[in-house]
Amino acid sequence: MRDFLPADVRRREYVIGVIKEVYERYGFEPLETPAVENIETLMGKYGEEGNQLIFKILKRGEHEKTGEADLALRYDLTVPLARVVAEYKEKLPKFFKRYQIQPVWRADRPARGRFREFYQCDVDALGSRSVIVEAELCAAASEALLKLGFNNFTIRLNHRQVLTGVLDAAGVAAERHADALVALDKLDKIGREGVEKELMERGIKVEAGDKLLNFFAGLVELEHAVQLAPLDEKREPESVALNQATLGRLVEFVGDHELGAHGIDELRSIITFAEASGVNTRIRIDPSLARGLSYYTGAIMEINVPDLAGSLGGGGRYDNLVGMFSGQNVPACGFSLGLERIIVVMSEREMFPETLAATPADVMVTIWNEESINDSIALATELRDAGLRVDLYTEADKLGKQFKYASSRGIQFVAVLGEDERKQGLIALKDMTTGEQKTVARDQLAATIEENL
Amino acid sequence: MRDFLPADVRRREYVIGVIKEVYERYGFEPLETPAVENIETLMGKYGEEGNQLIFKILKRGEHEKTGEADLALRYDLTVPLARVVAEYKEKLPKFFKRYQIQPVWRADRPARGRFREFYQCDVDALGSRSVIVEAELCAAASEALLKLGFNNFTIRLNHRQVLTGVLDAAGVAAERHADALVALDKLDKIGREGVEKELMERGIKVEAGDKLLNFFAGLVELEHAVQLAPLDEKREPESVALNQATLGRLVEFVGDHELGAHGIDELRSIITFAEASGVNTRIRIDPSLARGLSYYTGAIMEINVPDLAGSLGGGGRYDNLVGMFSGQNVPACGFSLGLERIIVVMSEREMFPETLAATPADVMVTIWNEESINDSIALATELRDAGLRVDLYTEADKLGKQFKYASSRGIQFVAVLGEDERKQGLIALKDMTTGEQKTVARDQLAATIEENL
Repeated sequence: MRDFLPADVRRREYVIGVIKEVYERYGFEPLETPAVENIETLMGKYGEEGNQLIFKILKRGEHEKTGEADLALRYDLTVPLARVVAEYKEKLPKFFKRYQIQPVWRADRPARGRFREFYQCDVDALGSRSVIVEAELCAAASEALLKLGFNNFTIRLNHRQVLTGVLDAAGVAAERHADALVALDKLDKIGREGVEKELMERGIKVEAGDKLLNFFAGLVELEHAVQLAPLDEKREPESVALNQATLGRLVEFVGDHELGAHGIDELRSIITFAEASGVNTRIRIDPSLARGLSYYTGAIMEINVPDLAGSLGGGGRYDNLVGMFSGQNVPACGFSLGLERIIVVMSEREMFPETLAATPADVMVTIWNEESINDSIALATELRDAGLRVDLYTEADKLGKQFKYASSRGIQFVAVLGEDERKQGLIALKDMTTGEQKTVARDQLAATIEENL
Repeated sequence: MRDFLPADVRRREYVIGVIKEVYERYGFEPLETPAVENIETLMGKYGEEGNQLIFKILKRGEHEKTGEADLALRYDLTVPLARVVAEYKEKLPKFFKRYQIQPVWRADRPARGRFREFYQCDVDALGSRSVIVEAELCAAASEALLKLGFNNFTIRLNHRQVLTGVLDAAGVAAERHADALVALDKLDKIGREGVEKELMERGIKVEAGDKLLNFFAGLVELEHAVQLAPLDEKREPESVALNQATLGRLVEFVGDHELGAHGIDELRSIITFAEASGVNTRIRIDPSLARGLSYYTGAIMEINVPDLAGSLGGGGRYDNLVGMFSGQNVPACGFSLGLERIIVVMSEREMFPETLAATPADVMVTIWNEESINDSIALATELRDAGLRVDLYTEADKLGKQFKYASSRGIQFVAVLGEDERKQGLIALKDMTTGEQKTVARDQLAATIEENL
């Protein structure tokens, strides 16, 4: 787990601020839940591996020595949301649209870019089965990334029911669907032969595996044929054509499979609705997208950037999760952006605005001698009242040391109240970036600094 | 522990935003530390009672069944700060001025206004022994409270070395100082006779106890004699006179006690420096202020509001705490505002700005029918691009239901794209607060809403 020193905090707050501003414009409202949940709320929601990665909290007082845990640290933001929706049903609106940006904790082995405490930025809409929601979430997440300076991401889109349809159509037995998806997920990494082998090992019939792999190979050819323009250029005609062609292939392959056909219809609607907000050119229907979490029931999404393994975020529809807490299902769909990844990529690619180059203050007020401390404090107060960020050196050190300190902190202006200047109501103002020093009337000082910042 | 629904989050963010803005203007920088610390970092820092109130985290994996804890939840923000300063010494400036606004966790029995997860707002300056720091902290905390709308608070100020001087001068044996302070702390509640009795029970000689209580009784008389004006009125002359008179009594009583005299000098300097920022009229030197924490070494402060038991915040100088981590002492002084108390008081006294009366959106776009969904999405997109917060109803419900929903959410404007209006590029806009409905050209809609919000 990490400490965030001032420059780190400023970068994080910048990213969070941009995301919040966008989500608020989409009508999402903030929610915060406690770091600690009852252990039963979390256990069993994230699979066997998840159970082991949950940080568990010892009972207190006389029960401490039992070694038992009754509480646990938040593992994601979706399960607490489901608990909240079940718990406050009466207080929440029929359609509950919330965003939540808070840390979660997982006892993973730490690795590069993976931490045991990390922030998730979730946005979810509850209460509606309409795929207008999916289209809105894609638009909101896309706008947040664009505002952060990402311009070449793709939102991959698929549908759990379409996956079911495809696997059924290929002849994969229902009880082998999960296995088939695990193998398929590796197509990028181990190639067709590798996946063929793994499908066989996982007990999927050769015939079914072949049919499946042929279908996906056809989609790859389709993509090559379309020759997509890079995403940061206008690519409307190609991406629209590719999505339409992919939908055509799916219809052909899935046929009259009821669930599959319904899923395809929903994908088509999402694309249509996405056209209206202009996010459709970012979306690529990708029938090979599976996503790990078992609670998804409909559309699934993932955002990828070229030259970056893994995703910047993802989400999907999960209509049955709230029911695990309230016994009554509430339709839900959400999207999660990975704050840590976004910050790593933005740092590496120097995407942060220059103005963020954290200086602790606009101006530092020096202290001339013990007798002038009060006057320095008064000056600092005046400048703060004028809205400036002011650091006050707190000791009557040699002036050279004070200048050196301001310079080491990257503070642009230093104000000096020398003996003579004080008598005349003047201040010596030095611009550390140019080395220029000038004398300014005390009542003009704030304005002079503001003009030159 | 509590969930914060949207209106709660907005109130918290408002308070945090005001405090941050003020602290940034004083040159403080943000720091964040992880929720989880190594258990050794925390144990033994908060006394025996503190040890028991720490939430402890079970070891993971194969070690889980040992029932042992190796990690613990952050208990305050001061100990993690001391750890950070010891750990990052080389990366931090000579004077490290940081603020930190994060939750802490204590396994207290929950009670009204007391929670097991709560936020602290700390501001600390490390590296300087000058009491300019104390004066700056008083000014910063005072400005934060003023900006939040508090106008009748007092900053009580005392000094650990002055307390030592007073107790020595009264003839309380050094090993009974802590006992004497615990008893004295109850003067308000149990009166002079009660304290007399408790001092005796705690083994303090009658003579010493008498001398001590006479001294404090004299201070109370002094205060009555001065007749302070209410704090939200100008009270400069009286408060200055009272502080000077109190300093005079202290000098008289403590005499040439070295530590005590030094402490009195520091109090006098703080008052002088506070004059320069104008916070001096808020400060009242109160020789009976003790504050619980054992790590304070110099000035101690506490902010009180009339008609409110307990304080809104407090702090002091602790020059030896960092040394517990690095072996090398770093002078430090800090102030902590109690976010939860501030929010409770502000809610009860209706101090939040009206504009915060959380509506989730400026305007809601309705959906006329299935065919017009795309047009509604496009309109929502246009309005969002114009900077408005827009909720899009996500189902083609009856219009009456959609209006009812907007009204229940407190959304002021509802935009309707009816069949006829759409053909003419017009939008029907209803102001839910007045009931007035008018037809607006689509390209004028955002401007019209903005003007009337």
